[in-house]
Amino acid sequence: MATKKTQKQYVYFYGFGKENTEGDSSYKAILGGKGSNLAEMANANLPVPPGFTVSTEACAYYSSHNASYAPGMEAQMKAQLKKLEKLTGKKLGDPKDPLLVSVRSGAAVSMPGMMDTVLNLGLTDKSVLGFIKNSGSERAGWDCYRRFIDMFGDVVMGPTSGLTHEDFEHELEAIKNKYGAKEDTDLTAEQLKELVGRYKLVYRNKVKKPFPQDPWEQLSLSVQAVFSSWNCERAIKYRQINKITGLLGTAVNVCTMVFGNMGSECGTGVAFTRDGSSGTAKPMGEYLINAQGEDVVAGIRTPKNLDDMPNEPENTAMWKKAHKDLLTIMRKLERHYKYPQDVEFTVENGKLWMLQTRNAKRTGLAGIRWAVEMATGKDVETGDKLPKLLTNKKALATITGDDLEQLLFPIFDIKTEAESTPLLNALPAGPGAAVGKIVFEAKDAEEMIKANPEERLILVRQDTSPEDVGGMWAAKGILTSTGGMTSHAAVVARGWGKCCICGASDLKINAAKKEIKVSGKTLKEGDWLSLNGSTGNVYEGELPTMDSPVVTAVAGNAAAKKHPIYKMYKHVSDWADQYRTIDVRANADSPADAKMARAFGAEGIGLCRTEHMFFEGERIWDIRSFILADSKASREKALKKLLPHQRKDFEGLFRAMKGLPVTVRLLDPPLHEFLPHSDKDQKFMAEHLGVELDLVKARVSELHESNPMLGHRGCRLSVTFPELCVMQTRAIIEAACNVLKRSKITTEPEIMIPLVGTKAEIDYLEKIVRATAEEVLEKRGVKVPYKVGTMIEIPRAALTADEIAETAEFFSFGTNDLTQLTYGYSRDDIGAFLPDYLNEKILDVDPFQSLDQSGVGQLVQMGVQKGRSTRPNLKCGICGEHGGDPASVKFCVKAGLNYVSCSPYRVPIARVAAAQAAL
Amino acid sequence: MATKKTQKQYVYFYGFGKENTEGDSSYKAILGGKGSNLAEMANANLPVPPGFTVSTEACAYYSSHNASYAPGMEAQMKAQLKKLEKLTGKKLGDPKDPLLVSVRSGAAVSMPGMMDTVLNLGLTDKSVLGFIKNSGSERAGWDCYRRFIDMFGDVVMGPTSGLTHEDFEHELEAIKNKYGAKEDTDLTAEQLKELVGRYKLVYRNKVKKPFPQDPWEQLSLSVQAVFSSWNCERAIKYRQINKITGLLGTAVNVCTMVFGNMGSECGTGVAFTRDGSSGTAKPMGEYLINAQGEDVVAGIRTPKNLDDMPNEPENTAMWKKAHKDLLTIMRKLERHYKYPQDVEFTVENGKLWMLQTRNAKRTGLAGIRWAVEMATGKDVETGDKLPKLLTNKKALATITGDDLEQLLFPIFDIKTEAESTPLLNALPAGPGAAVGKIVFEAKDAEEMIKANPEERLILVRQDTSPEDVGGMWAAKGILTSTGGMTSHAAVVARGWGKCCICGASDLKINAAKKEIKVSGKTLKEGDWLSLNGSTGNVYEGELPTMDSPVVTAVAGNAAAKKHPIYKMYKHVSDWADQYRTIDVRANADSPADAKMARAFGAEGIGLCRTEHMFFEGERIWDIRSFILADSKASREKALKKLLPHQRKDFEGLFRAMKGLPVTVRLLDPPLHEFLPHSDKDQKFMAEHLGVELDLVKARVSELHESNPMLGHRGCRLSVTFPELCVMQTRAIIEAACNVLKRSKITTEPEIMIPLVGTKAEIDYLEKIVRATAEEVLEKRGVKVPYKVGTMIEIPRAALTADEIAETAEFFSFGTNDLTQLTYGYSRDDIGAFLPDYLNEKILDVDPFQSLDQSGVGQLVQMGVQKGRSTRPNLKCGICGEHGGDPASVKFCVKAGLNYVSCSPYRVPIARVAAAQAAL
Repeated sequence: MATKKTQKQYVYFYGFGKENTEGDSSYKAILGGKGSNLAEMANANLPVPPGFTVSTEACAYYSSHNASYAPGMEAQMKAQLKKLEKLTGKKLGDPKDPLLVSVRSGAAVSMPGMMDTVLNLGLTDKSVLGFIKNSGSERAGWDCYRRFIDMFGDVVMGPTSGLTHEDFEHELEAIKNKYGAKEDTDLTAEQLKELVGRYKLVYRNKVKKPFPQDPWEQLSLSVQAVFSSWNCERAIKYRQINKITGLLGTAVNVCTMVFGNMGSECGTGVAFTRDGSSGTAKPMGEYLINAQGEDVVAGIRTPKNLDDMPNEPENTAMWKKAHKDLLTIMRKLERHYKYPQDVEFTVENGKLWMLQTRNAKRTGLAGIRWAVEMATGKDVETGDKLPKLLTNKKALATITGDDLEQLLFPIFDIKTEAESTPLLNALPAGPGAAVGKIVFEAKDAEEMIKANPEERLILVRQDTSPEDVGGMWAAKGILTSTGGMTSHAAVVARGWGKCCICGASDLKINAAKKEIKVSGKTLKEGDWLSLNGSTGNVYEGELPTMDSPVVTAVAGNAAAKKHPIYKMYKHVSDWADQYRTIDVRANADSPADAKMARAFGAEGIGLCRTEHMFFEGERIWDIRSFILADSKASREKALKKLLPHQRKDFEGLFRAMKGLPVTVRLLDPPLHEFLPHSDKDQKFMAEHLGVELDLVKARVSELHESNPMLGHRGCRLSVTFPELCVMQTRAIIEAACNVLKRSKITTEPEIMIPLVGTKAEIDYLEKIVRATAEEVLEKRGVKVPYKVGTMIEIPRAALTADEIAETAEFFSFGTNDLTQLTYGYSRDDIGAFLPDYLNEKILDVDPFQSLDQSGVGQLVQMGVQKGRSTRPNLKCGICGEHGGDPASVKFCVKAGLNYVSCSPYRVPIARVAAAQAAL
Repeated sequence: MATKKTQKQYVYFYGFGKENTEGDSSYKAILGGKGSNLAEMANANLPVPPGFTVSTEACAYYSSHNASYAPGMEAQMKAQLKKLEKLTGKKLGDPKDPLLVSVRSGAAVSMPGMMDTVLNLGLTDKSVLGFIKNSGSERAGWDCYRRFIDMFGDVVMGPTSGLTHEDFEHELEAIKNKYGAKEDTDLTAEQLKELVGRYKLVYRNKVKKPFPQDPWEQLSLSVQAVFSSWNCERAIKYRQINKITGLLGTAVNVCTMVFGNMGSECGTGVAFTRDGSSGTAKPMGEYLINAQGEDVVAGIRTPKNLDDMPNEPENTAMWKKAHKDLLTIMRKLERHYKYPQDVEFTVENGKLWMLQTRNAKRTGLAGIRWAVEMATGKDVETGDKLPKLLTNKKALATITGDDLEQLLFPIFDIKTEAESTPLLNALPAGPGAAVGKIVFEAKDAEEMIKANPEERLILVRQDTSPEDVGGMWAAKGILTSTGGMTSHAAVVARGWGKCCICGASDLKINAAKKEIKVSGKTLKEGDWLSLNGSTGNVYEGELPTMDSPVVTAVAGNAAAKKHPIYKMYKHVSDWADQYRTIDVRANADSPADAKMARAFGAEGIGLCRTEHMFFEGERIWDIRSFILADSKASREKALKKLLPHQRKDFEGLFRAMKGLPVTVRLLDPPLHEFLPHSDKDQKFMAEHLGVELDLVKARVSELHESNPMLGHRGCRLSVTFPELCVMQTRAIIEAACNVLKRSKITTEPEIMIPLVGTKAEIDYLEKIVRATAEEVLEKRGVKVPYKVGTMIEIPRAALTADEIAETAEFFSFGTNDLTQLTYGYSRDDIGAFLPDYLNEKILDVDPFQSLDQSGVGQLVQMGVQKGRSTRPNLKCGICGEHGGDPASVKFCVKAGLNYVSCSPYRVPIARVAAAQAAL
């Protein structure tokens, strides 16, 4: 019964038109972003150097099978190489006319600078001579060979042998010193040949083997190195920070080399179809003449602006044409992908080659501007006509919650900034305002933030590399002295919406002495800097920041409403409200919060935490008297003093919400949270209340709990002290009566009983609440519709939601506590092991930040389904921190909730996320 | 469309044979135990005074509708009364020949002394004259009337007016003094008539209304009082203590009165078909001549032994016949019900009437003896033949886990007791040994136990009443100076298997001075007493107790194996093992525990808590060194010292279990539990380990957690310190290798990773465990089958059990933690609100004692189902405290677990519970 199994395809060819190309952009998951886009461009007959892509499936196999190739993969690679050799007419390693290739990684999600690249592969002591003969440039031949040895040694053999780029740089410096060369380009062909010899020696010393002269061995080792780099530390860290999960691995692209370093008619660059920082619909880019791609990206030489290309002093006509060809292709690509593109190109002896295209990275501001302009077909600032690429729906789908969040970030106070003189101006690589203390080492920044998460830091470096991402993440802003808008620092920071200024060449950094000199001043580590990432201005000191135009406009400022940023915000919010199917409410404990929430579009209050009202002014003394009281009568006396305060707060809330629903949660925290814990404060309390210190101390110790999170709190308090529940209900209903009578506003308070785990608990308290409410209403002689419901935050409540819904008229999922109990994690203590859990990939993300859909989410779904099986019209919402997290909001829509509730400032984000989920 | 709804039947007739009787014993749920048995006896043509029963459904309606009658109930009562009047030829309240009735409560589950009874109802100022005329006894007439006013006033009107039995007693004493009467019986008819007048005055003064002269009003008020008593405090308390839930309410039995107090040919009594204390198969009972039932039960007069009845000096022949008739009926009843019966009877002018029969209450010992003897048909002591009433299966079903538990209680050391002289000997009303300090007030006993649950108390009282149940429960034993084997104290104590000695008339109790005098000695509150509830001996001081014969036999004592108690235990255990479908394992942390567990029939160890091994001797210093260490190397050094200790313990466990499975849990508690918390101990630790005190203090503070239960513990420790998991795995596997090599015992260790909440956690640690185990096995060159599994104790683990079972080879449900997290209750802090929750009936039972089936149980079922959906042969067990709770064990069988695991001493109980669940 031996049947021949059809072999899985692991290697895909592209280039030389549709007929030779095996994938397209729909193959992204297995060819990666780069590979699938190369195939897509080849299909569209764009000038792409041909090659083949080894799939992410091959990488996944390699990772999970102890670094061995998938069955058949090697044979397929050989077959595709043969095809490439046939079509190009060149052979890998051919001493006469060698084929050279690059090897590049490329996962399905773009991870800039994270993976490794090898250029000029195929050069050997023999084939370099063929290359020289055919290119006609001896210098180029040796330069390519020494670059190849450097990259191969560093990237492919480095991780196992310890060989680094610096080992080679050392030799380069030595040669330059030896021959008095200032720049690399000053070295002659002969000197470069000598350098190749030195490089091979360096290689042999560290690797303990000679530099491989078999080009197949070079290729195979390179592919393995790319595969392995998928799980290197920095790649893992990047995926963690960017919450990238669920990928198979990286693909490997083996591409025919084209050369930007063959003379003055050659060059290389990167370009964006629109500005990725401000979002302006104008192509931008950078290039270097006589260079290879790495030179631009690495930020070693400061590149030229793309706009200057048509005016190159040498070969002007040629460069003009290349520029025109490039813009034409870029327009074509943007229309083809219906999204701004980020391309890499090389000009080889006047001919333009496209090495890569991908959806461009951008700031949140740019993302929103793109979306609005692609949908409306109009420039938001000038009103000029632009191509209409997307429907409103599709445009909305391109925006993330994080994008919107960036519009809500503070910017510098406009007046103060206008009166300040910048220390310097450089490239505005990441927008927004950042203020912080100077720090020079990424590691130091990470540690300082670990010690004090509130610390504000500006990371100042010559340039950044993937090793620095942890520190970059920790800092509020990044300032580099070299590198352009597409340098590592710029690209990474922009992806995060973090403020970044690059290429500040006036800055003299002395990292050893931990100081910088600029404009005749010396600043030291710890001194304050203020960065305007939207203009590139850097200021000394701590500039005051101000709210974003959106926040200002929303708060009622008429001028701010004309600001283009507000207009964009308005477009997006309007779309969101048009498509979303669930309500968005806010968590607000004060009338001021409630007002802001409404301005941000909240459709009610999903959670008012009444305990926050107990800390202000005299109230804390009343609640403390309550806690100290030894009889129901004296407890009621203390509560009687609290009642008018609570009532007044509720009136304010009800007025601010003008008839929208307001959910009020009865007292939740354990009582000891209201008592002082230091000797001094306890003494003061005893004196203030005129009681014995011993009594205070005894009560504090009596209320001490081993696990207060699992202790005497929530509805358990009201069972022990029903008078508490009576006072709060009275305050709520009396406030509703007052607002109705005095302001003619009909409110519908939703009285929420927290921490319910059994039907009997809510039954017991619901009776008290209703009896109290009815008594008030009867006395006042008015009707106020009110609901009694509960928080679902105890797993048992979700498990028995069908029973609880017999009594509860609404559910609000308290996913903070629900997450604590479902995982058995204390939010206050998780710091002891969460870092290990994230490092070891045991958790993809902190479950308190983003809702755990398979565990906690299962309970939410169960709660909704069981609850509605008893009470089909049961109103369900969510009021934990997750209510403002876009992924969680999308889950809530799927789970059939009626609303999400989040902090006022996250309301716009929740609105957009809710709409996207509905699309 | 008006259709007439068929009315629900709320009132059922019984008596005058089958044709007039509307229920039988299958109506227990709605007629109560008493009512359904009266109907059953009437159906069998036994001499039962006729009457009718108002159903428990009527009571439930009354409770839930603000004390109003169910629709139609009153009319039905009137109709049934008319029928009763017609069949008896007498009319309620008839001035010529009145019908008198008793009104008695009776729920589906017997609750002795808890509910209220009214006798002689129907007497009024007019009807009493008719009664006198017909009975021919003026004295009896006035005596019945004054008793009726007393009972009606106390029971029916007392709760609302404050009128009590004592108010009437006061008048009785006054009359007795006035006429120089010593006993009640010394009072003449005229004097009793005067007493009736005084009673009516007392009634009017307290109730503010005259004593009702309308018999229908008397009846209606009485029925309402019985209904209301269902929710009186003492009834609720009794149900709580006895875990009685799910009943509708109580039924009310309205029965034609028969009179035991009409002279010397009258009498009343109670009897058991077998001894309810020792279990001996011999009828026993007590009676009083010329008395009503209340006199026996209340323990006011000490009754005569039933065996004396045939030899009554007066009316000997008549009493001989009554005795013979009674024994015949009792035999008939036992065979009919196939269970020993507890009957109430009255002899009225020589004619025997059966007032009640029910399954007899008994001690655990008696219950087991009954079961064994009813199944084997042989006396366990003498071997005599007895009726074979039950199959083994049915006999087993009559036993509870608590019964068996009583066999395992300690008894007095036989030698010491033999050498001690008892202070007194009285009635052995509840078996077993009890030692404790004297306390006189039930309330004091309750409070002392609340303050110190370890306190041992003996409650000493003249008699007990339902108000005392809380204190009786709190005490280890009860000693009363009046009352017989069927007094309140005796019946209640026996139901609980609590030691009780009654009728100690030599005891002079001075409750005011808090002292007792006996045998010329004076003992004060707080002095020690020792009670042998099986012999009735009371000793001064604190006698040493010894293990039960079962424990002694099981521990290997050959003589004890011949003890009848051990033989009964053996019968029951053998039956259990024959029928049960799941395994019973034990939780054991030491070789000694493991041995005992095996002797009790454990089929493996379900939970070995390795942390318990860390506290002994030098080990605590090694684990502390581990905790203080600042590098992996120094942590490994400390662990290396612990390894041989752990390995040795595991070897002991494996040897004791001789090849049965042993589940070892890796370290679970947070590390701070191993560190000292007082200054003094910290100083000592610093000196002992030769480190700075500051270092110790810093580590203690670093490890402090807000909610340690939700903190850095369980598998989270092993993720942070994988070396811990490596050491423990090594110890387990090396021990298995050693035991295999040296003792040829093949063990199958089950390595259990605690506190897993995600698949990634167990994946991470399983790799480490397997790698370590394989390394050891390879080095030793042997094969040891081992499993890697997890505890399911985090809700998320149950919710995602399908994923976790991909890696876990077994699940053990840790229902302690699972209960904590499912309810959000900390076991350490629940004391703050649990009493309120039980009082207010928000919880029926402490969920840490008996598994919450609807919430926590739902997660257990989900875990089993989801786990087996991935791994069909997944081994599932339970290892929380619940593993020894019979109700929980039954749930585990239903949920499809493979085994339960509990403490060694509860293994026999779990075996029986498991068998019962399978029947």
